[in-house]
Amino acid sequence: MKLSGLGEFGLIKKLQKKCSNISHDVLYGIGDDAAVVKGTDKKNLITSDMLIEGVHFDLSYTTFSQLGYKFLAVNISDILAMGGDPKYFLISLGIPRDFEAHYIYDMYSGIKKIARKFGVIVIGGDTCTSGFGLVLSGALIGNAKKVITRSGAKAGDGIFITNTLGDSAMGLHLLKKWGKKIHKFSPTTHRLKLIKKHLMPELTPLKSTTKITSMIDVSDGVLADLSHICDESKVGAIIYKDHIPLSRGLEAMAKRLGKDPYEFALKGGEDYSLLFTAPSNYRTDAYKIGEIVKKGRYIVDSNGEKTTFRPEGYEHFR
Amino acid sequence: MKLSGLGEFGLIKKLQKKCSNISHDVLYGIGDDAAVVKGTDKKNLITSDMLIEGVHFDLSYTTFSQLGYKFLAVNISDILAMGGDPKYFLISLGIPRDFEAHYIYDMYSGIKKIARKFGVIVIGGDTCTSGFGLVLSGALIGNAKKVITRSGAKAGDGIFITNTLGDSAMGLHLLKKWGKKIHKFSPTTHRLKLIKKHLMPELTPLKSTTKITSMIDVSDGVLADLSHICDESKVGAIIYKDHIPLSRGLEAMAKRLGKDPYEFALKGGEDYSLLFTAPSNYRTDAYKIGEIVKKGRYIVDSNGEKTTFRPEGYEHFR
Repeated sequence: MKLSGLGEFGLIKKLQKKCSNISHDVLYGIGDDAAVVKGTDKKNLITSDMLIEGVHFDLSYTTFSQLGYKFLAVNISDILAMGGDPKYFLISLGIPRDFEAHYIYDMYSGIKKIARKFGVIVIGGDTCTSGFGLVLSGALIGNAKKVITRSGAKAGDGIFITNTLGDSAMGLHLLKKWGKKIHKFSPTTHRLKLIKKHLMPELTPLKSTTKITSMIDVSDGVLADLSHICDESKVGAIIYKDHIPLSRGLEAMAKRLGKDPYEFALKGGEDYSLLFTAPSNYRTDAYKIGEIVKKGRYIVDSNGEKTTFRPEGYEHFR
Repeated sequence: MKLSGLGEFGLIKKLQKKCSNISHDVLYGIGDDAAVVKGTDKKNLITSDMLIEGVHFDLSYTTFSQLGYKFLAVNISDILAMGGDPKYFLISLGIPRDFEAHYIYDMYSGIKKIARKFGVIVIGGDTCTSGFGLVLSGALIGNAKKVITRSGAKAGDGIFITNTLGDSAMGLHLLKKWGKKIHKFSPTTHRLKLIKKHLMPELTPLKSTTKITSMIDVSDGVLADLSHICDESKVGAIIYKDHIPLSRGLEAMAKRLGKDPYEFALKGGEDYSLLFTAPSNYRTDAYKIGEIVKKGRYIVDSNGEKTTFRPEGYEHFR
């Protein structure tokens, strides 16, 4: 059904049903002027992210369900990066008038899929017409007993990363190169795994944040995001290139395409791994990729050669 | 300066300075993955609204400062309509690449103007490129001891409205009719007042909400919004047409244009008056425009003639 037939209030009613609240903490959800949640003794975390068609996503690459999944995932990632638990999600949608209603329902299925995984409840939002493409804006509320910022890294700390880097950037590269044809390849290939990493990022929350001194999620590329930690903590960093975790898929595809996998791993965005610092001997499943120093920002390669790095990565407006 | 010269992080730094936090409740504001505010014993309210260029605003009618003002105003209105105090505002912006940076600074001036008036603190957000027009999405956090929903109206209650109705719709009508030329008229005329009501809506918070049984803000038009209260409270309503407060400006301009002012007052959107119900003898500065009944939705005109009303007003997607 076209949204022009369903109308705004019709759509909201449908979405309300799809987001029936299951928590006693949500006193009022979708359907009033604002959502109401119980107060809490913990610190409240709030983040918001906007995804715009043609800038952040291409509807010829992604399904609506994948898009919904990623939309909430990028917001959850921001809350995890502060050491918090994601709780309540508000969705604002700008929707082209000729959209089919089931596009939006499919998107909500994707949102609910990851919401269930992380215990997030969709509590409200706003829908309106967009004169051009689809616009998604989300605000995610979370809470934390201990908040981890970007500013607590100390010289001597180790630098850790929860997941392999560069897969998402390679996935995007493949989508741009082959577009829809990519889906004809066998689903067991590296290609589809890399593409999935781009379309439905894997989030790995930390089990404990007790000894973590600073944290950020890798959205702009690890060099850019580590630079944020250095800026805010007023420290330097050394990364050991051969400690950077690469997936077998990234290595294989980069070789095949004659590309340097480290270009993807160091500068590629949207990995949504957690990058954190902790005492050097910290025991964790995460990969240790370097250490915090007093000054300077260096990459050391396998020959021990040291080069300065700059915060290269994806930046808007440039 | 063009944003393409300033870059995303450059812009965020500038905006961060413009939103320096002045409250001890905000532990971390703009500049990390998420904003952090102290927990509270009260109920938390959260609302979000999206404004899209060409749908919700026209940059040839509004200044950026007025746009910023209205952007936060519509969010504050949602929190007031729940009986709450607005507290923290998160801003997500999708900005065309060729925008001048001072457009955005001007918009923030407008946001700060109303933020100061209501004690709201801008705590963070997200900026990104938009491939088409300007997109504004805001999430506003508030809190309340007593939450007023749309569902508490009881037969016998009076229906009240805080401000005159229809001014904003007439203001928009004038802008569409005369466009930029409107500014050549003397600023003392009714025209400019009506236009200002559209561009910078006046919000009138209630001093007390003790006896209020239900409330909504008039964003879609009073008939549409009163219908929401009837739906949620499972009651009917009678409106007395000659009790509807009209401004002298609306009456004068409607006469001049040969229009029915009540068409604007009853169906026009974006007034952002508060529409509430309370015991019939409730003492208030607000205008009493009707009463809640068990069933049916009627308008009674000055001759005592009764006609049924439908939830007519502005609806997206139609």
